Amino acid sequence: MLIVMQAQAGEEQVRAVCQKIELMGYRPHTVAGAGQTAVGIAGNTGEVNASAFEGMPGVAEVVRVTKPYKLVSRDFHPDNTVIRFPCSGAVIGGSELTVIAGPCSVESREQLFAVAERMAAQGVRFLRGGAFKPRTSPYAFQGLGESGLQLLVEVRERFGLLIVTEAMDESSLELVERYADVIQVGSRNMQNYSLLKQVGRATKPVLLKRGMSATLEEYLLAAEYILNEGNQQVILCERGVRTFADHMRNTLDLSFVPAAQQLCHLPVIVDPSHGTGRSDKVLPLSRAAVAVGADGLIVEVHPVPERALSDGAQSLTCDQFDEVMAQIRPIAALVGRSVPAPLSTAAATLAASR
Amino acid sequence: MLIVMQAQAGEEQVRAVCQKIELMGYRPHTVAGAGQTAVGIAGNTGEVNASAFEGMPGVAEVVRVTKPYKLVSRDFHPDNTVIRFPCSGAVIGGSELTVIAGPCSVESREQLFAVAERMAAQGVRFLRGGAFKPRTSPYAFQGLGESGLQLLVEVRERFGLLIVTEAMDESSLELVERYADVIQVGSRNMQNYSLLKQVGRATKPVLLKRGMSATLEEYLLAAEYILNEGNQQVILCERGVRTFADHMRNTLDLSFVPAAQQLCHLPVIVDPSHGTGRSDKVLPLSRAAVAVGADGLIVEVHPVPERALSDGAQSLTCDQFDEVMAQIRPIAALVGRSVPAPLSTAAATLAASR
Amino acid sequence: MLIVMQAQAGEEQVRAVCQKIELMGYRPHTVAGAGQTAVGIAGNTGEVNASAFEGMPGVAEVVRVTKPYKLVSRDFHPDNTVIRFPCSGAVIGGSELTVIAGPCSVESREQLFAVAERMAAQGVRFLRGGAFKPRTSPYAFQGLGESGLQLLVEVRERFGLLIVTEAMDESSLELVERYADVIQVGSRNMQNYSLLKQVGRATKPVLLKRGMSATLEEYLLAAEYILNEGNQQVILCERGVRTFADHMRNTLDLSFVPAAQQLCHLPVIVDPSHGTGRSDKVLPLSRAAVAVGADGLIVEVHPVPERALSDGAQSLTCDQFDEVMAQIRPIAALVGRSVPAPLSTAAATLAASR
Amino acid sequence: MLIVMQAQAGEEQVRAVCQKIELMGYRPHTVAGAGQTAVGIAGNTGEVNASAFEGMPGVAEVVRVTKPYKLVSRDFHPDNTVIRFPCSGAVIGGSELTVIAGPCSVESREQLFAVAERMAAQGVRFLRGGAFKPRTSPYAFQGLGESGLQLLVEVRERFGLLIVTEAMDESSLELVERYADVIQVGSRNMQNYSLLKQVGRATKPVLLKRGMSATLEEYLLAAEYILNEGNQQVILCERGVRTFADHMRNTLDLSFVPAAQQLCHLPVIVDPSHGTGRSDKVLPLSRAAVAVGADGLIVEVHPVPERALSDGAQSLTCDQFDEVMAQIRPIAALVGRSVPAPLSTAAATLAASR
Repeated sequence: MLIVMQAQAGEEQVRAVCQKIELMGYRPHTVAGAGQTAVGIAGNTGEVNASAFEGMPGVAEVVRVTKPYKLVSRDFHPDNTVIRFPCSGAVIGGSELTVIAGPCSVESREQLFAVAERMAAQGVRFLRGGAFKPRTSPYAFQGLGESGLQLLVEVRERFGLLIVTEAMDESSLELVERYADVIQVGSRNMQNYSLLKQVGRATKPVLLKRGMSATLEEYLLAAEYILNEGNQQVILCERGVRTFADHMRNTLDLSFVPAAQQLCHLPVIVDPSHGTGRSDKVLPLSRAAVAVGADGLIVEVHPVPERALSDGAQSLTCDQFDEVMAQIRPIAALVGRSVPAPLSTAAATLAASR
Repeated sequence: MLIVMQAQAGEEQVRAVCQKIELMGYRPHTVAGAGQTAVGIAGNTGEVNASAFEGMPGVAEVVRVTKPYKLVSRDFHPDNTVIRFPCSGAVIGGSELTVIAGPCSVESREQLFAVAERMAAQGVRFLRGGAFKPRTSPYAFQGLGESGLQLLVEVRERFGLLIVTEAMDESSLELVERYADVIQVGSRNMQNYSLLKQVGRATKPVLLKRGMSATLEEYLLAAEYILNEGNQQVILCERGVRTFADHMRNTLDLSFVPAAQQLCHLPVIVDPSHGTGRSDKVLPLSRAAVAVGADGLIVEVHPVPERALSDGAQSLTCDQFDEVMAQIRPIAALVGRSVPAPLSTAAATLAASR
Repeated sequence: MLIVMQAQAGEEQVRAVCQKIELMGYRPHTVAGAGQTAVGIAGNTGEVNASAFEGMPGVAEVVRVTKPYKLVSRDFHPDNTVIRFPCSGAVIGGSELTVIAGPCSVESREQLFAVAERMAAQGVRFLRGGAFKPRTSPYAFQGLGESGLQLLVEVRERFGLLIVTEAMDESSLELVERYADVIQVGSRNMQNYSLLKQVGRATKPVLLKRGMSATLEEYLLAAEYILNEGNQQVILCERGVRTFADHMRNTLDLSFVPAAQQLCHLPVIVDPSHGTGRSDKVLPLSRAAVAVGADGLIVEVHPVPERALSDGAQSLTCDQFDEVMAQIRPIAALVGRSVPAPLSTAAATLAASR
Repeated sequence: MLIVMQAQAGEEQVRAVCQKIELMGYRPHTVAGAGQTAVGIAGNTGEVNASAFEGMPGVAEVVRVTKPYKLVSRDFHPDNTVIRFPCSGAVIGGSELTVIAGPCSVESREQLFAVAERMAAQGVRFLRGGAFKPRTSPYAFQGLGESGLQLLVEVRERFGLLIVTEAMDESSLELVERYADVIQVGSRNMQNYSLLKQVGRATKPVLLKRGMSATLEEYLLAAEYILNEGNQQVILCERGVRTFADHMRNTLDLSFVPAAQQLCHLPVIVDPSHGTGRSDKVLPLSRAAVAVGADGLIVEVHPVPERALSDGAQSLTCDQFDEVMAQIRPIAALVGRSVPAPLSTAAATLAASR
């Protein structure tokens, strides 16, 4: 913590600040700058309360210099966190690019199987699909609930895909934890601290999406809530933030990826579907996300997007998804990432007929 | 819904759009503009799925013309909603300016009584104070929980103040609903739809704070969730939004007040404490909030802000709060609002000694 | 300047930073925080180049602690700047609330006289009206140019109103400086440094509008450009900033007023017309702007807004303007500001017939 | 234009809107939606004034359906604009990826030659370097002026690089147009309409950088100003926008690239140096910019960034620039773009010794 004094602050005001620091049990260090004095605090082992100084006479500004998060930081855990799924051999955060694909909402067995078959043929290992849907309007489709989860399990059994699906609250979390392989926490719940603590006690990895207007620090602190409860398996996901720009649904902040990777050891994936809101922009932004160095992608795919009960405008068709996979494979290779090979047609047909 | 065609769209593309509208059971109305054609949809009784048209050849844009909310709208309920608290005579949304004041967090009986006595002396009817605190960092003070609620009840009994306190999840809601008079839902939970549905079934009024980056429409839809479950007693609260501006903690959006009041019948109050994050700016912004026509204010007051366990930098001292009350009284009168008179010193002393 | 080291930075990295500071001729001061070290710089008389340190091994962050502006600062000039117009007795920045009103664009003598007569009747001292218009579209009305300025001069002669009008470039500035009493620099030119330097050498006061997304610091630095050329008569104007919020044309940032007044000695006025973009919202936000403590208002008024060649949607009618004046007078009085009295009907008629 | 009526609007209010449309010489088309009526306008050849309707009783909203720009639009000019530099064989907007590199400011012959030699060795065709610098602070280095331009010309003669440099106003434009190959207009001047008109009459191509908070539409309208004066050779440049996010200097909006390319025929390049503000983030964002499909890159390179007089923190060293080139070449190939080959060491040495 650094307390910056006003240019016209008198010596006695600087002294009062130093005395307060000493009263708190710390040591003040005075630094005289160009026309201004600053007082540093040493000897503290935790965070110092800035507001104790903000109102004092002569104080211009209080600058925090220690990061408020710890467990998510590379200072604490220098190596990348790699999340392993032993039964399937899949990993998130390793050298293989993670691709998570599937419909926004689970709507029917037909819909889910149609998508899953095409995913599996591409070698994709993770299927996304919402059974509990946080919707802006109370009148919009709210998801199939537990029967949606059961359909996801059928798909896992048939195609060997791991399931990523969202939990919205304590009761849906209990179900999601039971059925799914990865628990998703949505953007609107990024600062739902009760839910964060609950998933922090869960035994499954958590995909925590960035809030609509979350700073990097707030986002890392939200992840810190989860790690602090004991669950170390957290995946970050940039999905576009809210800005003045109106040419896309959100502004996809790809610089977030290397910025987060530098400070934090958790895997960072990108959601170009929510990040753009428009299916024809998912392809170029998927290429860019892989090129920037993301650990993976999560994209929405629907067999017939125009009939989707949610997010149709941003869902790829299965053919468009194949094109995304075809275009990102060589870019992934250039940035040192492998991508599972597509199954040969024969193998894919066989897999589908299991 | 209006489907705007591209300038170079051919007749057959316009025809395809019209046919799709007819297939959906609606009637297309073609409007030829300057160099561009648009097709309106008539005959629909609910919302039409925009994504059905967004991908069609020749379509430039799909424009929604019907508001997606209903119960919160003045179209549906033209008169102001007035929330009454029969036992105390207090109202929110009526001609009396509502003032809600108190500490960010309930910390101790001493703290709470010190503030409450001064509030009561000012004629204030509502005490705020958090027992369950959503904090950005997992290491920050998280509130006293139920024992904090019990302290609030003691204050209600002693000073006759109504209690406003936050619920964060199902379990805290159960307690808050039992102890408090108004259930607060915080900014970070504005789109926690599970919590919104739960408070929608509660029997107490709900103070729903605006999300950090919520548009007016998203905010009204969040309120719509509550009304749709049966609870008509919702209070909106502008508390600053997140922008690029860094001279305050948030950017207080006072134009929100008349904008919301025009579209929506619910009371709209303003939180200049979170809206600025700095105690010395609460006074001028409180004056402005009353002048713009807000139905009330919610402000943070602490007997010794520099010792506050949360939000000290934005908390008023009791003396500063008295000054806020003194300055807003005549402004309230100018915009047609009454403010309860301060108790005479004698009466205040008597009240405190009850 | 404070160089914050990474938690894992070694002693030799801290030493390298200290050596670099010494090489630059300054003195390093090491401050050991909780798990991290910071190095302060002392002995510098001007700004230190942050980038000299940002790339060094072990450096986490470089924090600037000295404000980069000087002439606009209260540290340099503690008293309010009051701009006086001797011939008319008007002031800006004094205890009288400054009201500047008039049409967005000068369109015709009839238009201008119709508005000016009503302004004068209200005791208003400043008429705004653009002769050179910066328009988002090249196809929109670009202003009458010099003949517009001549119409403004006719109005000054007839009604005694002082003229505020915009200069866009060197050639229009020459004309504006000759004809007008206050030179306006628009939001889009807030960082047009060539223009700022030119108006800094002008002999008339400058009304510098805040840029669409200017931080307080950038705005003060833009004003610093003008003062640095010798012109001390600068008026700041909050006119709404660009955010995600879409219920108004811009988000009026009223907290800017006390924040700027605290750091800077220049007068600060508010433009609720551009700040909202909607005429029916100008009245409540005008009240709020006066209540927050602004030194004045600038509002758009048009005799027939629906026929305005620019900004019709946000222009008040003359009757609406009368209502604004009626409502802000008593609020101004409450915050210690006088407002010139309206002329009696007789006097106004007489004035108009001069 | 579509006028949307309020739900409770009466028939006579709809009729009044229709009559007004007819009075303006257009034809009204009534569209009855779910509970609301909308009135379309047909028969207009130019833009209709929205404000004529916004204040009318019963009107909820006025929706514009025609884009306000024309010359920059693909509706008007479906093919890509390709800007050719006949003497050098370079193009912008063609199949070859354009790379523009060089220091933020021209500081000295040594600095410029050191960078240019390395650029030329990479096959780069365009050198950037500012001689006139728009700086946030009046106390920061403002550029060498004409002598800087002369140094740039020396470099062109020695290394065959084309010169891109910024003009800030009429007088610097005259010089820049004489010396440079491409005239840059900076972000802060994106809505300096006087300058836009002047460069619109220039005979050299214009690199127009996106404003800090410019929407796509505003940006295209700024380009429209230039085309409307006769200069068809305009290059757009995404350079990061201003948002709440604070982990980078700006938020690089890569979705802008495909969005602009879809609507507009002009080349679109990306500036990852300003877009991130941090040299270590330029590499990953350069890869992403090429992958998303940009027509080119503009990056800052300095022989010794820590001694740079401006923008040192975001400048690459020459070695880092080589790495950027090495990494983007194969990505460019994947998206169908060629990149000029680096000269062989021998050829480069020869070129430098010419």
